[in-house]
Amino acid sequence: MKKPLILICNDDGIEADGIKALTKEIKKFAEVFVAAPHTQQSAVGHSITMADPIRVRKVLMYGDFYGHAVEGTPADSVKLAVHTLLAGRKIDLVISGINQGANTAINIIYSGTVSAATEATILGLPSIAVSLTSYTYPDFSLAAKFSAKLAKMVLKKGLPAGTLLNVNVPAIRKINGALATKQGKSNWDDTYEIRLDPAKRKYFWLTGSMMKLDKTKDFDVKAVDEGYISVTPIHYDLTDYGFYEKLKKWKL
Amino acid sequence: MKKPLILICNDDGIEADGIKALTKEIKKFAEVFVAAPHTQQSAVGHSITMADPIRVRKVLMYGDFYGHAVEGTPADSVKLAVHTLLAGRKIDLVISGINQGANTAINIIYSGTVSAATEATILGLPSIAVSLTSYTYPDFSLAAKFSAKLAKMVLKKGLPAGTLLNVNVPAIRKINGALATKQGKSNWDDTYEIRLDPAKRKYFWLTGSMMKLDKTKDFDVKAVDEGYISVTPIHYDLTDYGFYEKLKKWKL
Repeated sequence: MKKPLILICNDDGIEADGIKALTKEIKKFAEVFVAAPHTQQSAVGHSITMADPIRVRKVLMYGDFYGHAVEGTPADSVKLAVHTLLAGRKIDLVISGINQGANTAINIIYSGTVSAATEATILGLPSIAVSLTSYTYPDFSLAAKFSAKLAKMVLKKGLPAGTLLNVNVPAIRKINGALATKQGKSNWDDTYEIRLDPAKRKYFWLTGSMMKLDKTKDFDVKAVDEGYISVTPIHYDLTDYGFYEKLKKWKL
Repeated sequence: MKKPLILICNDDGIEADGIKALTKEIKKFAEVFVAAPHTQQSAVGHSITMADPIRVRKVLMYGDFYGHAVEGTPADSVKLAVHTLLAGRKIDLVISGINQGANTAINIIYSGTVSAATEATILGLPSIAVSLTSYTYPDFSLAAKFSAKLAKMVLKKGLPAGTLLNVNVPAIRKINGALATKQGKSNWDDTYEIRLDPAKRKYFWLTGSMMKLDKTKDFDVKAVDEGYISVTPIHYDLTDYGFYEKLKKWKL
């Protein structure tokens, strides 16, 4: 049987440990093509580069495996790979990750990892975004293994058009299992530190912490906190259908 | 009666004609505070700046009115204004715009204009994003007037927590009215031009056009095409609730 073709991208950049761990694991059963930003692109949201040209270079990722470093954003990397670098090839699945840091609750909308997977979905491809919920935990093996398991399920069962899976893996040694979840309602309690530069001019620096507002493990934040891998189906139809019905009655 | 306090931002930068037209119109009934990126920030999506400090300077926008130029993204501008520049003040409404170019259908997720308004919603403030559906049409007066009308309605009626209004005004002299709409399903038919630099190295440049897939004027793209102002209620809960019920049956 022909191996599936899987496109892998991320937002931490092609040199990140997470994308290497994911690539090695997925290579066990698939043909893997890596196209990822040449540098760290966290919190770029769903940026695409229109005003500037984009360059690409091949880079040795590990052993004898080469990836493609894209001078652009996560979404650029996917768009360029699908339209140009893999033009004419049937891509069976796109996986974005493994991100270092959670992409749960409100973080989803700031996430470059999720935006890369969303771009794949927009282009008509099934896709998965995977994050490890710690900025420092160095062991991606459990997240990589679950990514491979979920990838095989998606290859077999498919996903509805317009829907992708956002996966968050707890940064612990032993997990309790995996759960289907909803995007949590937790939010940032953030502010700016006001500082002075050497010339006594003010500048501002963002700082803050997450307010955990989710109480049950059917929400991503709480599922992860209780030691479960969280799998949230998300889409990019932002319409608030409930309020749409009410807005129709406003005298616009 | 005390005038409402309205924060205005955009993604085309503080020097853009659209934000000036909007500010002048809203100033007729409200106290206006402008915080907007110092330069053009289109298609930045929902980026926020975490790794770098942010500077702000006051700039004369027109007559004797000063705005605040933020060295960051549209979402940064709103976050910084709410947390720091206007700290302690009650902000009654945030308006982002007037963008030069449509933010309908899939464009919503790439839009800096919408992301600024979304950031306001995340911070608990009612907000509106306004776009004029042409990259070149120079007359913002109709869009500014409708923004003022809608702003007054929202100040009076409020919006549900987590929901904002995304407005697209056709770039024509005489409109047919305004409609509540849903996010359209239209998508980009895009690709990359492959070019060679003087040293014969390849580079890529994004190009493409919109495939209009919406047939009825209850979708934003079609409403605008038929000469109506489109008002779409959107939110940032990306959960696909329909598929969530099915995913629960997968053996994750």
